[in-house]
Amino acid sequence: MANFYSPRDLNFQLFENIDLSKITDIPYFSDHSKENFELVLEAAKEIAERKLHPLLTEMDRKEPQLKDGSILIHPGMKEIVRQFGEDGWINATFSYDEGGQQLPWTIHLAAGYILQAANYSSSVFPFLTTGAANLIRSFGSKAQIDRFTPKMYSGQWQGTMALTEPDAGSSLSDLTTQAIPTEEEGTFLIKGQKIYISCGDHDACENVVHLLLARIKGAPAGTKGISLFIVPKLNPESGEPNDVTTEGLYHKMGYKGAPIAHLMFGSNEACKGYLVGEANHGLKYMFQMMNEARLGVGMNAVAIATAAFHASLAYAKERPQGRKLGEKNLSQPQVKIIEHADVKRMLLFQKSITEGTLALLIYCSWLSDQVTHDKDFETRKKRESLLDLLTPIAKSFPSEMGLQTTSAAVQVLGGAGYTTDFPVEQYYREARIHPIHEGTTGIHGLDLLGRKVIQNDGLGWKELMKEMQKDLIKAKSFPELKTQCVKFESAIQEVNTCLQKQLGKAQKGPEVFLADATLFLEVNGILCVSWMWLRQAATSIQALKNSSDKDFYQGKITTAEYFMEYELPKIQGLISRLNSETFPTIKMKESEF
Amino acid sequence: MANFYSPRDLNFQLFENIDLSKITDIPYFSDHSKENFELVLEAAKEIAERKLHPLLTEMDRKEPQLKDGSILIHPGMKEIVRQFGEDGWINATFSYDEGGQQLPWTIHLAAGYILQAANYSSSVFPFLTTGAANLIRSFGSKAQIDRFTPKMYSGQWQGTMALTEPDAGSSLSDLTTQAIPTEEEGTFLIKGQKIYISCGDHDACENVVHLLLARIKGAPAGTKGISLFIVPKLNPESGEPNDVTTEGLYHKMGYKGAPIAHLMFGSNEACKGYLVGEANHGLKYMFQMMNEARLGVGMNAVAIATAAFHASLAYAKERPQGRKLGEKNLSQPQVKIIEHADVKRMLLFQKSITEGTLALLIYCSWLSDQVTHDKDFETRKKRESLLDLLTPIAKSFPSEMGLQTTSAAVQVLGGAGYTTDFPVEQYYREARIHPIHEGTTGIHGLDLLGRKVIQNDGLGWKELMKEMQKDLIKAKSFPELKTQCVKFESAIQEVNTCLQKQLGKAQKGPEVFLADATLFLEVNGILCVSWMWLRQAATSIQALKNSSDKDFYQGKITTAEYFMEYELPKIQGLISRLNSETFPTIKMKESEF
Repeated sequence: MANFYSPRDLNFQLFENIDLSKITDIPYFSDHSKENFELVLEAAKEIAERKLHPLLTEMDRKEPQLKDGSILIHPGMKEIVRQFGEDGWINATFSYDEGGQQLPWTIHLAAGYILQAANYSSSVFPFLTTGAANLIRSFGSKAQIDRFTPKMYSGQWQGTMALTEPDAGSSLSDLTTQAIPTEEEGTFLIKGQKIYISCGDHDACENVVHLLLARIKGAPAGTKGISLFIVPKLNPESGEPNDVTTEGLYHKMGYKGAPIAHLMFGSNEACKGYLVGEANHGLKYMFQMMNEARLGVGMNAVAIATAAFHASLAYAKERPQGRKLGEKNLSQPQVKIIEHADVKRMLLFQKSITEGTLALLIYCSWLSDQVTHDKDFETRKKRESLLDLLTPIAKSFPSEMGLQTTSAAVQVLGGAGYTTDFPVEQYYREARIHPIHEGTTGIHGLDLLGRKVIQNDGLGWKELMKEMQKDLIKAKSFPELKTQCVKFESAIQEVNTCLQKQLGKAQKGPEVFLADATLFLEVNGILCVSWMWLRQAATSIQALKNSSDKDFYQGKITTAEYFMEYELPKIQGLISRLNSETFPTIKMKESEF
Repeated sequence: MANFYSPRDLNFQLFENIDLSKITDIPYFSDHSKENFELVLEAAKEIAERKLHPLLTEMDRKEPQLKDGSILIHPGMKEIVRQFGEDGWINATFSYDEGGQQLPWTIHLAAGYILQAANYSSSVFPFLTTGAANLIRSFGSKAQIDRFTPKMYSGQWQGTMALTEPDAGSSLSDLTTQAIPTEEEGTFLIKGQKIYISCGDHDACENVVHLLLARIKGAPAGTKGISLFIVPKLNPESGEPNDVTTEGLYHKMGYKGAPIAHLMFGSNEACKGYLVGEANHGLKYMFQMMNEARLGVGMNAVAIATAAFHASLAYAKERPQGRKLGEKNLSQPQVKIIEHADVKRMLLFQKSITEGTLALLIYCSWLSDQVTHDKDFETRKKRESLLDLLTPIAKSFPSEMGLQTTSAAVQVLGGAGYTTDFPVEQYYREARIHPIHEGTTGIHGLDLLGRKVIQNDGLGWKELMKEMQKDLIKAKSFPELKTQCVKFESAIQEVNTCLQKQLGKAQKGPEVFLADATLFLEVNGILCVSWMWLRQAATSIQALKNSSDKDFYQGKITTAEYFMEYELPKIQGLISRLNSETFPTIKMKESEF
């Protein structure tokens, strides 16, 4: 029934390629077991198949509406929002004390992947509430936690992240929303506007709790003067409106089921906000959460790409068209299009990207779980640096490649793929958001090259190289992987030489140094996914010997070969550009376009 | 006012980069002049700005409707369809005898580019009528020409191409629509169904004239048994229905303003069709027209990409966000995003692809005009072979790259680009059709490598190399282009070596030979656009010396540099794959996905 992802592959990723059952050695997870994790995934599959997927098309066709200042969403979504709360999805990773299940984040993210693949729009609602609640429990006071989180956990209240303003999108340092102290300690009057607020208002929840960035009057300019506030739509006790008004609803190309609002705060000077943690530390708090959110967005991208891949795969297995090349006998029936090498190329492209980036995201979430619970300072620092380095890659590469893989899915279906009779055109539209939100690809390029490869004396990069070498040595023990190992090893060297050249450019100023940071990000995306495929190929060769599931493992090995043959060589053109010393993008003047 | 294309660039392409005024040396065009051509382009700009562009968004939001078996299109389109006829756009290239203007096809295509950039959906209507009328005048009898074409030229009747069937899309040899001879000579009873028929039915015209492929009862199997018929919706004289019914209307991701129909022919055994030319020659006739149609689709793709480029360019010039890298002073105002190198990279990417592929299409249409009117057999044969070779490239490369450039346009706008408040998301959706219709990219890959580079003892390829060398020699005379010439020359060599390796693989059978034909097509797309940029750069260096329009020409030279630096190197990864001797796409089994 689940035709939007492969349960078999997800199981492989979690329990074979990474042995996640070992995570129960960590005391926080000691009540859990592999069986238990599988039950969680099974529950996600159940709600995805029975509730989310059936609404996929309808939520796209019947967009939310703004009526009398309120946003009305698809009625079917109301029950789902509530169920996400009741079934414990929102606070699953939190401690027992908080009513959570102490679930590894890896399992939570994997379950999320199933929900997102089934219906991306609907998965956004709990995802945001979890993020907002997590900010409160991490940095808020006990009183704030008690006041706001229980109804967020239960799905009665929606959580949001309110960052962007009309003049402050990528440049958060320019935000101008004001917070004016009141007589009541910790309570401020908020005044300003926020745009692009996902789930910023809707009628499936009783209240909306905004985690909002603003400047306390008199705070320093730039990012050092930004504070974090809890701003509820309604007063939690009285239920009275808190002067938060919905100014507009954005209509967008895709994931139409999730409402994106333009909100006004304090138009009547009566919007109360509650300071979270210390004044002027807001951006630091937000970023701590944003790393998880970024991996989350990477996973969203993988999920949509996965659904598109499986839709096109199913079509290719059923649709007859043409004959094998060289077949002249027209009385022969047409063959299924999956028999054409060019169609298989488009399917292998999708499989290699979706399963390769899924492996990367799962690896990152596993790292995140380790970092959160690791007792050893040195190990934690290393893993944290590695995770910090991988985050911009794991957010951006799946997002950018998702555009190309969902496009390949459309192409496999041909004319049918362009019509609304099949879901691939919707996936193509939905995938387009991911290179934009939670930091554009350009921003993540700057983050990787301008910050992450340098900080802590390059510790993150050193760790990455160490981990790649470890897996390379293992892979070399399999003669079947000889060619792949040669290709991967030489790619590692090329990328390292390239990195040294980039660092050399830093002397020429930040513009020259970072002009092609986006390309450097892409190179590393390709390199990391090659690494993930080498791991998967090695795991599969081992498994093949004692398994009856030979097709699955052989498919993995051939897909790894595909990636090394077709995708990895793309770093050549990128590196040749990165190593150049002429800079047309800097030289070009506005008037010359 | 025209913010969807650059009149300055189009003028450069036509009258500087190619000296089109010389075409008036050909007797057929001798009444024309450069001024005259400019008037035609000005007229296109006028209707595009005043009529087409204002309806762009509305035609997307208010889709055609199927009501009581008839398709109703946007009311505003009715006036435009009629005006296309009245103003002489439909038969502009035809002879004076036929009521045409003997306009070069190059100018007609360039005018079409303006219309398509303004509103792609609306441009489809006359484009199809021209194609259908062209088939009748080229292969039909005088009686057929007199009976059908006048009202097509005047825009009163719509023309279509009716090829695709549910079981015959890419594989035309499998089409099953039947034509049964009647007592009346040349008249047949048609029975079958056709899908994806663009403008197959609508209420802006009085009649629809289908140019339909079918099999005469008893005809040979495959492509050798396909004949071409004229099948009107209504009897031209009596106005009675001709048993053509509209079974369905497709809803699609983009270019929603143009209705795409599912049609039934002869459900009541009363659908009359009129044989065009000789029986069983239908596919040959159709293909003669299809080459022009394919260049037309390439141009559509360029046009949409151009509109998206200019929309994102305008936004980048206006939108302030962030500061130059390294600027720490936050009291400085934010800069326009066009000042960021990464944004300029996305704009240069779009400029280089759109203006580079526009140059390629104009070059091809110029070749086509020469071929049509050339008196010298040898020259004609050479140019025809070159045009045949370039056609799959000129159709597919702009189509495939249009996906990436319209995506870059969305990215430049960020969150705003994903909303329906700006047209870029619409361009992104509309562009997705081009790699599919008039032959998918995969089909054109097979055409290029499996047919075009081989036929006539490789004459087309030899001509291509000769022309590239000619321009290379010229470019070498400019010291400013030294680096670019070195890069281009070495690319030519690499592509030739790659071609030899591919031809070597032919011995291993067609599947091995053609498995990566799509990649070979992409390599040649990049090479040809590099060539076009070298030409444009050389033209611009010359012009720069005596012009006050220095920014325009300097922009061209820097964009050429951009292409050689960022895009041309991409052939390295593709060629490295093409030269490989392992074939994962052939090896992979259906059960292994």
